[in-house]
Amino acid sequence: MLQGKVLIAQGGGPTAVINQSLVGAVLEARRMGAEGVLGAMLGVSGIINEDFVDLAQETDAHLELVANTPCSALGSTRDKPDLAYCQEIFKVLQAHGIGTFFYIGGNDSSDTLRILSEEAVKVNYALRCVHIPKTIDNDLMVNDHTPGFPSAAKFVASSFAGVNLDNRALPGVYVGVVMGRHAGFLTAAGALARHYPDDGPHLIYLPERSFDMDAFTNDVKAVHDKYGRCVIAVSEGIHDADGTPILTKLAADVEKDAHGNVQLSGTGALADLLTNAIKQNTDIKRVRGDTFGYLQRSFLGCVSEVDQREAREVGNRAVQFAATRARNGTVTINRVGDYAVEYRLNDLTDVAAKTKVMDDALIAASGTDVTPAFLDYARPLVGPMPEAHRLRAPSIPKVLGR
Amino acid sequence: MLQGKVLIAQGGGPTAVINQSLVGAVLEARRMGAEGVLGAMLGVSGIINEDFVDLAQETDAHLELVANTPCSALGSTRDKPDLAYCQEIFKVLQAHGIGTFFYIGGNDSSDTLRILSEEAVKVNYALRCVHIPKTIDNDLMVNDHTPGFPSAAKFVASSFAGVNLDNRALPGVYVGVVMGRHAGFLTAAGALARHYPDDGPHLIYLPERSFDMDAFTNDVKAVHDKYGRCVIAVSEGIHDADGTPILTKLAADVEKDAHGNVQLSGTGALADLLTNAIKQNTDIKRVRGDTFGYLQRSFLGCVSEVDQREAREVGNRAVQFAATRARNGTVTINRVGDYAVEYRLNDLTDVAAKTKVMDDALIAASGTDVTPAFLDYARPLVGPMPEAHRLRAPSIPKVLGR
Repeated sequence: MLQGKVLIAQGGGPTAVINQSLVGAVLEARRMGAEGVLGAMLGVSGIINEDFVDLAQETDAHLELVANTPCSALGSTRDKPDLAYCQEIFKVLQAHGIGTFFYIGGNDSSDTLRILSEEAVKVNYALRCVHIPKTIDNDLMVNDHTPGFPSAAKFVASSFAGVNLDNRALPGVYVGVVMGRHAGFLTAAGALARHYPDDGPHLIYLPERSFDMDAFTNDVKAVHDKYGRCVIAVSEGIHDADGTPILTKLAADVEKDAHGNVQLSGTGALADLLTNAIKQNTDIKRVRGDTFGYLQRSFLGCVSEVDQREAREVGNRAVQFAATRARNGTVTINRVGDYAVEYRLNDLTDVAAKTKVMDDALIAASGTDVTPAFLDYARPLVGPMPEAHRLRAPSIPKVLGR
Repeated sequence: MLQGKVLIAQGGGPTAVINQSLVGAVLEARRMGAEGVLGAMLGVSGIINEDFVDLAQETDAHLELVANTPCSALGSTRDKPDLAYCQEIFKVLQAHGIGTFFYIGGNDSSDTLRILSEEAVKVNYALRCVHIPKTIDNDLMVNDHTPGFPSAAKFVASSFAGVNLDNRALPGVYVGVVMGRHAGFLTAAGALARHYPDDGPHLIYLPERSFDMDAFTNDVKAVHDKYGRCVIAVSEGIHDADGTPILTKLAADVEKDAHGNVQLSGTGALADLLTNAIKQNTDIKRVRGDTFGYLQRSFLGCVSEVDQREAREVGNRAVQFAATRARNGTVTINRVGDYAVEYRLNDLTDVAAKTKVMDDALIAASGTDVTPAFLDYARPLVGPMPEAHRLRAPSIPKVLGR
């Protein structure tokens, strides 16, 4: 049985399937006859402001339409509650009789929930807290993967499959910058774009390895010498041997969020820095760079079916766990077959404020590619993609010998 | 009957459906029993180099796979042939017995064909030249629209639909920069993203109107004051009242192509320039910018069905025109119903090196939006898109009065 009224909020960056989790939790809570099902607008900031909506007043049909719409329908926040913030939250939760709180988010959001649940214990407020995972970064501990990642990976793979063809038609160097601060999973997903042996991305730069500009331009030159072209996938989080992000090396004033993180997205500066370095240090003429930006997490119409289904299920399971287990926790996705998963309730501290990065076994010895193990890992998550085919027509003998 | 061997080439920037036109022409030429069906690799530069493939040696099944793959399968070029270049082309065409030449491309490519056909007349070489239209810029004269535009428009609309939701979840200002040097059609397609009256893009800046930075920041501030957020679609080709591209105002060294055009794509500089202007001239904190870049024309898996069909048809019709009309020309798409088109053979000079821009009737009086007439024009081309739905749940009364 669900304790008190149920409250649901969404935190951190949106994903293509975060509303599947919302709707999965809402429908399950309603089915269980919850005393009330409330939604907090704009994440925890909406709790502080008592900005609640009555999710019992939504039709099933309309909830399904919302579930299929990308990006947090309740709105989100980057706020990171401290003690004072949490005390304000309690006042509001108590006033509204809320006894069960589901927060859909990444490692920052799960840490918010950990602080909140610890504060609840201190002040002896009966609150059941269950974290529902989501993040395109795929960087939550314990989890095999996280909802939102497979759809973003499909977008990134579809992007690189396209620009590889574009680069083959008009040869040169192409740099594509992908989201991911500390974990390179999403950048690595670019490797799923390859169909033929000489397809790009030919080089993949991950935040799990140190980035050196000289090595980079040498790598690019070597690939260009071999294929007459070069497609490169770069994580926005690449950093030097000291851990300093490459992006901050050129930015005079760097924007930071409430969590102290340097703002990496929303600017094309890193791609421009890298393309300029190639132009200056090689004699390659056509060098282009794109930053895939917010499209990676929000593009309308690029969703992995596995992702859609699992995002719905973690919402369902969170409510089932809250009703049947007498403890707080985070729902985790665990791979138990090829391909099959099961969902478990782990401790919040297992994932809160921690970051999973790519295992060495997933990164090639060169440091600029993934291993077949990564492809085996990622393919069932992304699912089938359109295929890119080439002409096979044989050459016609030259008459003029040109 | 087709004159001599048939040669097909692809020029300019790739599109999502340019291979439909290639395959449409190849299959039709084969069906007519052409003496030979050759493909030139890398556009006209492949003719100079005698770099031909034998398109008679392709299976129908494989051609269909290629047709469904984005980006010029034969490769492309930005070369603009002059007289000497054309004389070299003739030598090669003569040596290979080529009597019919189809060039798939935009206004630059059709101008190449015009020069080539005029040179052919001068040297008394029997050559039938037919231009097959394609360009995501949608800027060919006479044509209602051009193959490649509807799919790129679908990508841009899907992008803005997504970032509008993202911006609603985490409010602030978002700038999306869209391809298009002189014509704003593709940027305008962002308007198809709107579903609710307050959806973005809230402001649309087209190269058909002069851009003023002060007016821009005032517009953004006004929208942000009204909605608490603002999504902006900007053409990469925006320019000041003197016609100077805004991008060149900050770039120290500007890259130019063989046609003398300033390189606008492949850099995030314009988006960064605009977001910095907003940060400096308003007190809005969260300002993000993306440049949609090459994904607009190459992304694997975002194709308009109408576009796919018509791109195939212009390839078919080009061959039919070459076989039945004793003249050179360009295939044009003409809208004759709502929605229905027919294809005509126009003179090469009708479209060569000319640029169609958006008619005043398609641009709102404000200069920062499109009219309903534009939406009526573009909707049947893009076709159905996924729908973006919002929660309708009513607010819950405040208990603490916050």
